[in-house]
Parts: sequence; structure tokens; C-alpha cells
Amino acid sequence: MEFTLGQLAALLGGTVEGDLSQKVNRLDKIQEGKTGGISFLSNEKYEPFLYETQATAVIVSEGFVPNRTFSTTLIRVKDAYLGFTTLLEAYAQFSKNALSGVEEPSFLGTGSTMGDQGYRGAFSYIGKNCIIGNHVKIHPHAYIGDRVRIGDHTIIHSGAKICADTVVGSNCEIHPGAVIGADGFGFAPQPDGTYKGIPQIGNVILEDFVSIGANTTIDCATMGSTIIKKGAKIDNQVQIAHNVIIGENTVIAAQAGISGSTEIGANCVIAGKAGIVGHIKIADKTTIGANTGISKSIKNSGQTLFGYMAMDMKEFLKSYTHFKNLDQLAQRIKELEKKG
Amino acid sequence: MEFTLGQLAALLGGTVEGDLSQKVNRLDKIQEGKTGGISFLSNEKYEPFLYETQATAVIVSEGFVPNRTFSTTLIRVKDAYLGFTTLLEAYAQFSKNALSGVEEPSFLGTGSTMGDQGYRGAFSYIGKNCIIGNHVKIHPHAYIGDRVRIGDHTIIHSGAKICADTVVGSNCEIHPGAVIGADGFGFAPQPDGTYKGIPQIGNVILEDFVSIGANTTIDCATMGSTIIKKGAKIDNQVQIAHNVIIGENTVIAAQAGISGSTEIGANCVIAGKAGIVGHIKIADKTTIGANTGISKSIKNSGQTLFGYMAMDMKEFLKSYTHFKNLDQLAQRIKELEKKG
Amino acid sequence: MEFTLGQLAALLGGTVEGDLSQKVNRLDKIQEGKTGGISFLSNEKYEPFLYETQATAVIVSEGFVPNRTFSTTLIRVKDAYLGFTTLLEAYAQFSKNALSGVEEPSFLGTGSTMGDQGYRGAFSYIGKNCIIGNHVKIHPHAYIGDRVRIGDHTIIHSGAKICADTVVGSNCEIHPGAVIGADGFGFAPQPDGTYKGIPQIGNVILEDFVSIGANTTIDCATMGSTIIKKGAKIDNQVQIAHNVIIGENTVIAAQAGISGSTEIGANCVIAGKAGIVGHIKIADKTTIGANTGISKSIKNSGQTLFGYMAMDMKEFLKSYTHFKNLDQLAQRIKELEKKG
Repeated sequence: MEFTLGQLAALLGGTVEGDLSQKVNRLDKIQEGKTGGISFLSNEKYEPFLYETQATAVIVSEGFVPNRTFSTTLIRVKDAYLGFTTLLEAYAQFSKNALSGVEEPSFLGTGSTMGDQGYRGAFSYIGKNCIIGNHVKIHPHAYIGDRVRIGDHTIIHSGAKICADTVVGSNCEIHPGAVIGADGFGFAPQPDGTYKGIPQIGNVILEDFVSIGANTTIDCATMGSTIIKKGAKIDNQVQIAHNVIIGENTVIAAQAGISGSTEIGANCVIAGKAGIVGHIKIADKTTIGANTGISKSIKNSGQTLFGYMAMDMKEFLKSYTHFKNLDQLAQRIKELEKKG
Repeated sequence: MEFTLGQLAALLGGTVEGDLSQKVNRLDKIQEGKTGGISFLSNEKYEPFLYETQATAVIVSEGFVPNRTFSTTLIRVKDAYLGFTTLLEAYAQFSKNALSGVEEPSFLGTGSTMGDQGYRGAFSYIGKNCIIGNHVKIHPHAYIGDRVRIGDHTIIHSGAKICADTVVGSNCEIHPGAVIGADGFGFAPQPDGTYKGIPQIGNVILEDFVSIGANTTIDCATMGSTIIKKGAKIDNQVQIAHNVIIGENTVIAAQAGISGSTEIGANCVIAGKAGIVGHIKIADKTTIGANTGISKSIKNSGQTLFGYMAMDMKEFLKSYTHFKNLDQLAQRIKELEKKG
Repeated sequence: MEFTLGQLAALLGGTVEGDLSQKVNRLDKIQEGKTGGISFLSNEKYEPFLYETQATAVIVSEGFVPNRTFSTTLIRVKDAYLGFTTLLEAYAQFSKNALSGVEEPSFLGTGSTMGDQGYRGAFSYIGKNCIIGNHVKIHPHAYIGDRVRIGDHTIIHSGAKICADTVVGSNCEIHPGAVIGADGFGFAPQPDGTYKGIPQIGNVILEDFVSIGANTTIDCATMGSTIIKKGAKIDNQVQIAHNVIIGENTVIAAQAGISGSTEIGANCVIAGKAGIVGHIKIADKTTIGANTGISKSIKNSGQTLFGYMAMDMKEFLKSYTHFKNLDQLAQRIKELEKKG
């Protein structure tokens, strides 16, 4: 993907102050710019880098007036930051759509269909009776079990595993190594101390615009469905157990874990390493801090919770301040006892 | 897999109150029943759903008397719950055994043998000199290293990695993305601040009836074996370090971690995100709460432990109640000091 | 790999007290020695096992005088422990280098080159325009994206995923299922409550002698690079977010997590399950205890930190001792109040 500065200026509605035929193929930070890269200057703090950068071009805002000499070429646009963002998105969009066709060997089970403009990488596996939409990109080593449905414009990255009967919406992105729809962890204790597996015959439903991080695991329901609702974004190494429901636009950071049958509301923010027990409900717009443990339902929306056993965040921090000084507190009690 | 109601009634020793030739191909929750599904009604709380369900059939107990009209077909058995469980297990068993034969391309190393009734999915890899039992199902993208042995009726799911020299018992199930037998984390600090890898030449032994969750990692021993004993059930994203021993019928929930050379007893229950340091022993029948940290051996069996640094669970909860009120406690000390 | 005792004695500069033509193919613990294995006796605590071991041979130090009969064959060397270590390293080195050539089917994209003495396992995938050094071993199911560079003597294990544009140094080892260079977790909240993905166009750089554990995830930078510096050793299931920098010779144990843009110094030791927030700096030679939460920059090097919200380790343990007795402390306050 190589573009001339002239092409980029046209895309951004800007003007090139120099040679329009120079080519760039990469977006660089201004402080790390090298030949072939294009950067931007928005925050004046970074202005000194403009005079030193080796980037081929730098996007600047209309009003910018340089006060020293420089060797890069300026592209002037209305707002440098917005211009660069536009470029960034165009670049990302282009990268995603660049792949198409089928690399061999790949495996497509009987009865499975794939829409137009798709990509199936080498060693990708699609089971039987799957229905896969248009513009779907299935990367190398991805595994799609039997009867899976996948909506348009969804990307399944390398080595992601979408188990049988999973339903994936449109515009989803499943990152490498994620496992969607493996058996839930259900075992019934027997009188002799052994455990007997409880069949897990449900599935997982990912609605539209869902993102699932690398090596995250989402188990299928015992019966019915584990559901990740529209627009939810889930980071790497998150564990979501059977029959969990995650609300719309809820964000879950890395290494968090949600136990079975718990229902998380919409627009929640769950920080990294948080743990939530099973069979509870979390109200909409709840914010849960890093490494926080939640053992009870949260009924009122809009709260911010934190702590080993979750409390209101401010209250926890107050208690923790005293915890840090517990030795002094204990000394003071001793003093009082002496006096008494 | 499609069955007539007549076939199912015969399997369950029950009677169909309606058309025996109707077909079902799915088990549904009664409140989510749709055409082609079969549900059950056991808990009377769910009776209202019977009158509305669109499931093709519902299993009910002998004595059940409906008090309204309904459109589904009843199958009457002695005990609806047991009947459904029977169906569930038959279904699960059938699903597991349905796969057989070899999909191509797949890779079988020289000197490796595979028993009868097995399945090798496309892109599965089996190294050299492996001995694999009967009825073993090796799903697509599974990796089996050199000299691995696998017992009868074991299932290796998609993308699971069983490294060289691992021994897997019979009736085990290894879920997608699990890594069994990668190198333990052993590095010797050198005088110049660098680290030198200590060769990890041991293996992992999984005994019979062991279940390993998706993306769980179990490292090989430095020398000798990391051992997961008979009937142990391990959830997703659990980390088990080199030379650990997990006792019979011990259950470990998601995201727990066990450090090197620790020995866990039999019939323990370890909840999600618990962390256990290395080189200690945990007595049989120990229960360890979620996110609990264990830094010392547990010598007496039957205890329930909880907390950031584990305590008896009741004691921890008592202390935590005071922690929540530490600000008030500190105020009370201040008051006493004023008086004094 | 089978060797005669004569060959091994030659390697170790020792002498065989028995039949030089006996063969061994395995290193055993002395207490678990079986025919075909070679063990060592260094610590006198283990001497009793010498008289019972079924190992074919045992390495002993020059001065060792047995006081009972035994059936194994002794190999006498200057120092038994060093001798065994030499053997261990030779064995590990040999194992690593044993693989070479190409197993089919495998995929090598256009414009990609691979050096001498390499190995590409069946179902391994290498994208376009990759530059791969000499003696590089790429195991089955490994995924290498476009434009990746890999230095000499590096090992990419089964199912590891090295995403596009990643740079991997020489003498690195990437364990099974690790994901290097997946998208960072960056989403911008929109006025309507939805999130819009922020393109992640940077890469990951692993310098020389870096080790990455099984199922660990290291995200690519938003722009620029996520960097793991020379000699850093990272265990299983560690999460490293976008734009993080890990210093030279820093060691990170399993299930730890580092949030975005944080910079960890050199020669740090980070224990299992520790969590570090984003956008901070950790000084060189910092030790961070298991399950510790770090929310602020650590400016002075050489500290040891521990706790739910990190404190000096000794201070935390002091406070935690009082926490355990908070109920008694509260009782004592009550008593004082009664008296007052």
C-alpha cells in the first residue's frame, strides 16, 4: 500500500507544500518518523520534532507557522489531528479489506456456504452446514465448527476457534486464539467423590459489532445461550462462563472473569482482572475497578465499585488508607489501654 | 440427529399423548421452546410456560395434570427431570461418538498408531511414535507431539496442543486451545544479570477421566512428571506450573494458578482466580475461595479458606466487615484519645 | 536419541565402571530411574536410592564410595552435579536442533525467505515478505503474518501466532499458543454509548534472547512499538497491552498483566497474577509480589512491593497481621469506650 502525497492530500482535502509525487507507505509517530512515513503535528509540545523528523511528510493544521527550517514536506489540512485520524481509519479499513480469495489447503465442510468478497486462509477449517455472510475474513488456522452462522463483514483471526452452533453477528472481530463455545464447566458430584459431566448442549450468541480479544474464552450455555450483546468489547484472556449475558456496549478489560449465569447490564466498564461470581445481576452503567471481586448483585446503576470484596470506590480507598496505618492504630489502642 | 417422539418415548419408557411421528432435533428450555425442540417440565414454577411454549414436545411426570389448553405434545414418563437428563446424556454421548474417520489433509508421523473408531480432523498433527487408543477423537488443528500416549475414549479438541512425551489417560477431554506439556518456567540468574534457561526435560501425565478447560496451560516437569490425577476437572485459563501434582477428583475453576512443585490433595475445590505459591502441600478436601492467595501448606483437611492472604473463611469475613468500617473505628480511637 | 555410556563418558570426561556399550535414551531422577535412563547422585540424602535404582547408569563424583551393592553402572566424573547439568544442556540443545527440513503441507507466502538449517512443520503458515534467519524452527500450526522478521536460532512453537509486522530477535523462544501482535484494546466512546475501534497500526518488537510463555498475549502498539527488551523472560498466560515496554532481563511470572503504555525497568521480577495499571513507569530492579496491584509509578529502584494496593512488603505484612485480628482490635476499642 503505497500512496503519493498528492493522493493523500486529495483524500484529506488539504494541500501539499512540496513535491506531490513523493510516496509514503506507513504512518509514523513524528518523533520516530523515517523515510516513507507520514506523521502529524497537532500538540505544540511535539513541534520540536518537526524540525528533526525524517518522515517524508507531516500533516499540520492550516494556521501552523514553523519557526525553524525542516526537511520534511508539509500537508496542510483544516485540523491536523482529525486529518490524521481519517488517514488512520482509511488505512485500517484498507488493511482489513485487502484480503480475499481462498488459500489452499483449506477445508470447507459439506453444506456450508460463504458469501461474496470473503477470504479463507490456508489451514482454515469450516465444518458442515455453516452459513457465512459477505466480506467475511477467515484467517489461517481459524476453526469454525458445524452449523455456525457468521454475519457480514466479520473477521475471524488466526487460530480463533468458533465451536459448533455458535452464532456470530455482523461486523464482529474475533482475535487470534479466542475460543467461543467450548463446553461450560459443569460437573455433578457423585456419592463416591467423583464428578460426572453435565452435558453442555447450548451455544454462544455474539451479536453485531462485538469484539473478542486474543485467547479469551466464552463457554457455551448448558442449555439456551451465552449471549454477548451488540457492541460489547472484550479484551484478551477474559473468561466468560456458561449462560452469562453481557449487555450492549459493555467493555471488559483483560484477564477479567465472569462466572456462570451472571447477567451484566449495558454500558458497564469492567477493568482488568476483575472477578464476578455466578448467578448475580449487575446493573447498567456499573464501573468495576481493576482486580475487584463482586459477590453480590448490583441493583442501582451508575455505581463505581472497587476492592477485594467490592465496595463503593471512595469508601474502599478510605478504609485502605487506614489499613496502611493499622500498626499505628493498634499502637494507639495500646497507649489508651495503658492510660486506662 | 433427528428423532421421532415415538423413538424418544421408547428410549425413556414413556408414552406420547399425540402424534408419534413428529420429529425433534434439539433440546430447548421450556421458556424458549421452538418448533423442532423438546423440553421438560419438572419444577411447577415453570408450568405457565407449558401453556405458551412452541416446543414440539414437553416431557412431563406421570402425575402431572394440566389446567389450561396448550399446543405442544406431552411425553409422560415416571420422572420428568430424570427423563430429560437421560435424553441429555444420550444426546451428548451421541454427539461425541458421531465423528469418525480421517479428514484430509492431516498428518500422522512415522511409527505412530491409532486405535479403532477414531477421528482425525483436517489439519490435525500427530508426531512420531505416538500410541493412541480406540475411540479417540482428535479434532482439527489439534497438535500431538512425538511419543505421546493417549488412552481410549479421549477427546482432543480443536487446537489443543499435547507436547512431546505427554501421557494422557482414557476418557479424558482436552478443550480447545489448551497447552499440555510446554516448557516449565525455569531460568537461573547469572552474575551479569541475565538468565539462562534450565532445560525442562520432564513430561505431563494426565490420568483417566481428567478434563482440561479451554486455553489452560499445564507445564512439563523440569525432570519427572507434572501429574493430574484421576477424575480431576480443570476449567478454562488455569495455569499449572512444572512438577505440580493435582489429587484425584480435585476441581479447579477458571483462571486459578498453581506455582511450581506444589502438591494439591484429593477432592479439593479451588475457586476461580485463586493463586497458590510453589513448593507447598494442600491437604485433601480443602476448599479455597475465589481469588484467594495461599502462601503456606494446609495440613489439616476439610478447611475452607478465603482472602487475599488466606484465612479461615469466617474469620476473614469478620475481619473484612471491620475493614469496611475502619474509618469509623479510627474516629472512635480519636474520640477516646480526646477524652483521655 | 540413544547414546552408549562410552559416548557419554567421553562427553563428560569421565570413566565408566562397567559395560561401555550399554545404551541410554533418557534422563531420570534417581528415585524414579528405569532401564534406559541415566541419573546422577550429588546430594548424599539421595544415596539410598542408588542401591535400588533401576536406571541403567548413574553419574557420581570422583570421591564417591558406595557402602552397599547396587545393580546400576557408575559413570565417575569430577563433579556429578555439573556433569549432569552438562548432559542436560547437551540433551536440550540436541532436542532443539534435531528438527530440520519442511513437512508438508505447509505454507510459505510470496517474497518470504528462510535461512539455512531451518524447520517448518506441517500446517505452519508464513505470510508474505517475511525474512527468517538461520536455524529457525517453526513448529506445526505456527502462524507468521506478513512482513515479520525473525532472527537466527529462534524457536516458534506449535500454534503460536506472530502477527503481521512483528520483529522477533535471535535466540528467542515463543511457546505454544502465544499471540504476539494482535490488536491493542483501544475503543473511543461515542455520544450514543457505542464504541468505535481505534486503529492499532503499530507492531511488537521482541529483542534477542526473549522467552514468551504458552498462551501469553502481547498486543501491538497503537502506533510505534510494544517492546520486550533483550533477555526478558515471560511466563504463561501473561497479558501485555499495547505500547508497553519491558526492560532487559526482566522476569514476569504466569497470569500477570501489564496495562497499556506502561514502562517496566530492567532486571525487575514480577510474580504471578500481579497487575500493573497503564501509563506508569516501574524503576529497575523492582520486585513485585504475587497478585500485587500497582497503580502508581515506582521511582526508586530496588524496592520489594506487595499487597492488593502495593506497599512496601514488610509494611503490608505488618498491616495484614493486624487485619487478621481486627475483630479483637474492635473489641478492645469497645472495652475502652465502656471504661471511658
